Amino acid sequence: MVASDLAPATERHAEAPGGKRPPFAAWLSTTNDVTKTFLSVAERADVINLAGGLPEPTTYPAQELAEIAAEALRSHGTEVLSYSQIDGLPALRDRLAERFSDEFVRLTRENVIVTTSGMQALDLIGKVLLEQGSVIAAHAPTYLGAIDAWRPRSPRFRPFTPGSNTLDYPAVFEGASFAYTVPNFSNPSGKLVTHGQRIAMVEAAHQTGVWLVEDDPYGGLYYDGTPLPRLLSLSGRLMGEASGPYMGPVVYTGTLSKEVAPGLRVGWVVAAPEMIQALTVAKQGSDMCTSGLSQRLVLDAMNAGLPERMQPQILALYRARRDALCDAMEEHLGALFIWEKPQGGMFVWATARDPSLDTDALMRLGLEEGVCVTPSSVFDVTGQDRRAIRINFTLNAPERLYEGVRRLAVAVRRLDE
Amino acid sequence: MVASDLAPATERHAEAPGGKRPPFAAWLSTTNDVTKTFLSVAERADVINLAGGLPEPTTYPAQELAEIAAEALRSHGTEVLSYSQIDGLPALRDRLAERFSDEFVRLTRENVIVTTSGMQALDLIGKVLLEQGSVIAAHAPTYLGAIDAWRPRSPRFRPFTPGSNTLDYPAVFEGASFAYTVPNFSNPSGKLVTHGQRIAMVEAAHQTGVWLVEDDPYGGLYYDGTPLPRLLSLSGRLMGEASGPYMGPVVYTGTLSKEVAPGLRVGWVVAAPEMIQALTVAKQGSDMCTSGLSQRLVLDAMNAGLPERMQPQILALYRARRDALCDAMEEHLGALFIWEKPQGGMFVWATARDPSLDTDALMRLGLEEGVCVTPSSVFDVTGQDRRAIRINFTLNAPERLYEGVRRLAVAVRRLDE
Repeated sequence: MVASDLAPATERHAEAPGGKRPPFAAWLSTTNDVTKTFLSVAERADVINLAGGLPEPTTYPAQELAEIAAEALRSHGTEVLSYSQIDGLPALRDRLAERFSDEFVRLTRENVIVTTSGMQALDLIGKVLLEQGSVIAAHAPTYLGAIDAWRPRSPRFRPFTPGSNTLDYPAVFEGASFAYTVPNFSNPSGKLVTHGQRIAMVEAAHQTGVWLVEDDPYGGLYYDGTPLPRLLSLSGRLMGEASGPYMGPVVYTGTLSKEVAPGLRVGWVVAAPEMIQALTVAKQGSDMCTSGLSQRLVLDAMNAGLPERMQPQILALYRARRDALCDAMEEHLGALFIWEKPQGGMFVWATARDPSLDTDALMRLGLEEGVCVTPSSVFDVTGQDRRAIRINFTLNAPERLYEGVRRLAVAVRRLDE
Repeated sequence: MVASDLAPATERHAEAPGGKRPPFAAWLSTTNDVTKTFLSVAERADVINLAGGLPEPTTYPAQELAEIAAEALRSHGTEVLSYSQIDGLPALRDRLAERFSDEFVRLTRENVIVTTSGMQALDLIGKVLLEQGSVIAAHAPTYLGAIDAWRPRSPRFRPFTPGSNTLDYPAVFEGASFAYTVPNFSNPSGKLVTHGQRIAMVEAAHQTGVWLVEDDPYGGLYYDGTPLPRLLSLSGRLMGEASGPYMGPVVYTGTLSKEVAPGLRVGWVVAAPEMIQALTVAKQGSDMCTSGLSQRLVLDAMNAGLPERMQPQILALYRARRDALCDAMEEHLGALFIWEKPQGGMFVWATARDPSLDTDALMRLGLEEGVCVTPSSVFDVTGQDRRAIRINFTLNAPERLYEGVRRLAVAVRRLDE
């Protein structure tokens, strides 16, 4: 799975003094350091970073959170500085249950666990469901972070790409430990899974019983059109009148990283109580509990309506940047790549018209030209797909996006040299 | 490993609608919910909680941290609310490298990773070193949280109890994926590993090459005597003149949870760069990075000398409570249990004089009498040892400690009924 032009993540056992070190676990040799590259590129002023899934930092509500934090520590200091319950602050779990309840799905505190980021939610799901070599039915191309989270179990992937009406979801899901999808503006493809395909997925999960992980970091980032129903809600509808907590197969994960700020590291899982209990056992041995201060900040920010107040500004900003990126691509890359303008999220997925173009090589040349994009190989569980790139549009202002795309076009032309 | 009187942690697949759910991972059936019990007992005013390893919450520096947090968000808002580097804020890594350097061991930023709590440090160590069924040479009795962290890999444990001069450490360590010890006031036994035994352990790690995990949450909680050298320092001494970053086999983990406040969830690992790099790969797929706000709070608190300023008051408080607990035990339990007064840490470990006394049953009766202690079975990797209890003295004031011990003595007498 390692793109050949990316440095190996760890050097092994160099110059160990004394006896021979026991080996590192085998899964480590299958890793890549793409995410680390993205984060470190963020510090290089000479590189335009179109690679990561990073929000625009000036949107972070630092002043409001400064007041909320000071007040939380002054008024609830003992609570926020203590170990919290493993599954999260009860008031935050209640708030999240309320947020994701609707006319079709009725949620209670038992349906919710607070996690230390959306990434931890994926890690915990892997811990409670995967044995070594288990099968995951995974939306393809697949979020790199999910592949990373599950790598320690060396799972086998059964890729599926929502979109075709002929896709036999029950056959795809049957026998898997779980199915995984990012229905809203999938990372990396930016595509929206249609209403019909959502229903088909949920029906297949109900029919086969397989857990269906709905990873939804971008559900608040619709720039055009009306948000489609969550799989969680469609599952509630399928189950009919709810008399107690949700008991269905959908395992919904979310985060405020994209809507408020990533530095708080607070995410959540909404699922059947038996799943929440299992995740709680796994969380106990992972980090015991999420920061009480972060949880309190998120709760107080939600209670103050902060995400809703921020949303219009964020949507307008990102909508304009998406349009700017697509305009720049039209001008510089239209003859070389094909893409769909996404209705939301953070990424444009562009596939080379020339099937022999190698985007691993393009990433390397792009860095030389001062632009960083993500090659498709890291989102392909077989590591074979080298024909596409993922381009982020949320982090940079329009003029930087234009310049980044111009540099990228230079890098593409250098591929033929 | 489950004590028979503790409820199973998860109910499996009850009333799943639709098809049959895929099974949870097998390791989950070996869990216990002792830690969850401790944390939930904390909310019951009628139960005196002598079970958890909880600090006294009134020591938490909430007012100071309120000011530090507000200032950090106002002045470094973008930084603390962004994704941080996976391995931690560079300035915090530098600060920690400085803190644990001494005349024998020279540390640099490359030797340090910031983790989301000491528990995550143990989780990450397991992820990078353990295959299914690997061997861990573990200080016995063994910290429950470490057993929890490594449970998903179903390791085999090779227990050893420091103290005997005839212990053949190289034989104990050889072939293990790593060795694990809590040399300062071990959880649960409260015992201090002697200077001689420390040297023997470090020499064995150098000789065999085996990683030696030094888990040190209580290194700042010496109530009597002079702190003994860290294994990390002894390892540096053994390696002679340092010309670069530490490259030895000791993997040192720590946290500010016991010295400042647990709610920040910041811990660290200090080790050879190759180990730090491997842990960074594992952290990327676990929670991506630790909260920038928490890291900034810890850094600013350390730079302001907060831990050092808090220490005298905390040591005086806990010393008095340790003495109060031991006095109460002398009065009520002296005929029933034997123990050593610990020189530091948070716990007294008491072993029943009667070898047939069952401390799992005692825990249950204790809860009926309004006191919670921890039975030895959960610290025994075989689950067999039911003869001892762990009693915490840091959370409760002397009069509560006295009353808790009195209730415990009532519970012991009821065992014979």
